[in-house]
Amino acid sequence: MSNRSATAVAHPNIALIKYWGNRDNEWNIPSSGSLSMTLGEVFTTTKITLDEERDRDFLSINGLIASEMAQQRLSAFMDGVRKLSGRRGYCVVESQNNFPQGVGIASSASAFAALALAASALFELPLDVIAVSRLARLGSGSACRSILGGFVEWLAGEDHLSSYAIQIAPPDHWDLVDCIAVVSREHKGVVSKEGHRLASTSPLQSCRIATANERLEVCRQAIQKRDFDALTRVVELDSNLMHAVMMTSTPMLFYWQPATLNILLEVPRKRLEGLPLCYTIDAGPNVHILTLKDHASDVRAWLKEIPGVQEVLFAPMGGDAKLVKVE
Amino acid sequence: MSNRSATAVAHPNIALIKYWGNRDNEWNIPSSGSLSMTLGEVFTTTKITLDEERDRDFLSINGLIASEMAQQRLSAFMDGVRKLSGRRGYCVVESQNNFPQGVGIASSASAFAALALAASALFELPLDVIAVSRLARLGSGSACRSILGGFVEWLAGEDHLSSYAIQIAPPDHWDLVDCIAVVSREHKGVVSKEGHRLASTSPLQSCRIATANERLEVCRQAIQKRDFDALTRVVELDSNLMHAVMMTSTPMLFYWQPATLNILLEVPRKRLEGLPLCYTIDAGPNVHILTLKDHASDVRAWLKEIPGVQEVLFAPMGGDAKLVKVE
Repeated sequence: MSNRSATAVAHPNIALIKYWGNRDNEWNIPSSGSLSMTLGEVFTTTKITLDEERDRDFLSINGLIASEMAQQRLSAFMDGVRKLSGRRGYCVVESQNNFPQGVGIASSASAFAALALAASALFELPLDVIAVSRLARLGSGSACRSILGGFVEWLAGEDHLSSYAIQIAPPDHWDLVDCIAVVSREHKGVVSKEGHRLASTSPLQSCRIATANERLEVCRQAIQKRDFDALTRVVELDSNLMHAVMMTSTPMLFYWQPATLNILLEVPRKRLEGLPLCYTIDAGPNVHILTLKDHASDVRAWLKEIPGVQEVLFAPMGGDAKLVKVE
Repeated sequence: MSNRSATAVAHPNIALIKYWGNRDNEWNIPSSGSLSMTLGEVFTTTKITLDEERDRDFLSINGLIASEMAQQRLSAFMDGVRKLSGRRGYCVVESQNNFPQGVGIASSASAFAALALAASALFELPLDVIAVSRLARLGSGSACRSILGGFVEWLAGEDHLSSYAIQIAPPDHWDLVDCIAVVSREHKGVVSKEGHRLASTSPLQSCRIATANERLEVCRQAIQKRDFDALTRVVELDSNLMHAVMMTSTPMLFYWQPATLNILLEVPRKRLEGLPLCYTIDAGPNVHILTLKDHASDVRAWLKEIPGVQEVLFAPMGGDAKLVKVE
């Protein structure tokens, strides 16, 4: 039984309709549904190994011992896995990202998606997509969306069983590319796990939540019809709504840097030239510009000219999380 | 009767609790109450002269013929004056600001306050503060607050009679200074009169309005107790709430420039050093930093070091609008 291991890979995702705020912080049951595209070429590989010698779980990230905060987050997640499976045993978890940190690609979604899948195999939990998505959600809310490729909706639900992600369109449905304009590699401000707890302190959050289903429907339709203009309107509005809530929380959270705003102000001007462009921003200063694959190199060239843009990364559509090896 | 004239002066004001959106656009009945400080040393002087030779009203601003849009706005206001007074006669209106344009001090409030007072004298309308405040509101909503000095609350009301401003504390109650960091003299984006009409397109406006009375009460208390920390929290939150609504309207309105955000991000850092500082931003890129009089020169020195700040203007507390001459 000892030294058995499982390895899985999963992709990060970028939310088109954002997740911000929980109705239940313990179980990561969100206040509203959300919708993302899974990002290809970038991924996390996670190997989990049972080790009977150990008296606690152990996490390394990119070959380095993870921080105490990350160790505790792993332990809490693994306690859930042991409880759900009725099995015992501490584990060594080795997580590797093939993408750099601090560039606006959240690694917690891909990391917990890969871990949920690998741990499900190792602890003989159900391996169906819904079950693994639910489990991933317990590690990091948005990780439940990284179980699936393409366009993915997280059904908010109201409890552990009803809150999980489904695929609404496969990766080959629409050739979108995420061009990430890196304006800072420093992480300033509050980590998103803490930010979710602050969402309800904004006087605006209840209005944002009350109208989220409308935006989800508009976004779903835009994806189904491959209507880039409709997608642009709803995605940019939804991103602004999340940041509006952030900057009116107590304490107020500002994730934007001056260069972030530079890009936001340039996007509508560039769009007038006919380039399909759509921005969205997560809990950080870097800006995700979505475009169609054929225009990605034009978008990169344009972004590189904007003051404050250090680097531009590409990510095409990505696929499902996968179990690579169980031994 | 011909060639009679009246001259009045009025100060601009800066809103601490913002006015954004009307329940009635025709009568400028606001969706919520607002609260401002009147700005001293800066003022508009307006002379209105009856001229029986004319077949329409005529406006000059700082000695130059005003734009056609401004002429029409004056005519609409004067039509109201003629209707209310039951008197006839077109007028020449000469308006002079002793402060530059485009520096973040809205001239429409002081201009319509001075005009309302001068026109009331000329057309023998009631000259009590409430009546003049109501009339000024018809020209520009926030002008109703510029009739009074010190700290002024605009009681939202529900119709023309119940919507006017009152003084909640005189100018000498608290020695605040408004330090205006000018980052751009260009006016970009939508003028505020049009912006008010867009407020209701934001999914967030109803939440902002529903909570406005709480903030008004907190702000009133902070002023009465001269509690700068409490003032800071509510004023910065309220400013962010207005900009949150603006950037989530359809179309989305961004009044901030990158340098605006530079200042917003520096304020909390500087505050940690013990300087009393509080920002608020109107429908433009320039930032108003409120402080106590004793700290104004420190604040200016600090602001001048922030990248993108072109100039820093001062305005202390200001007094009531005044009738200067009737002849």
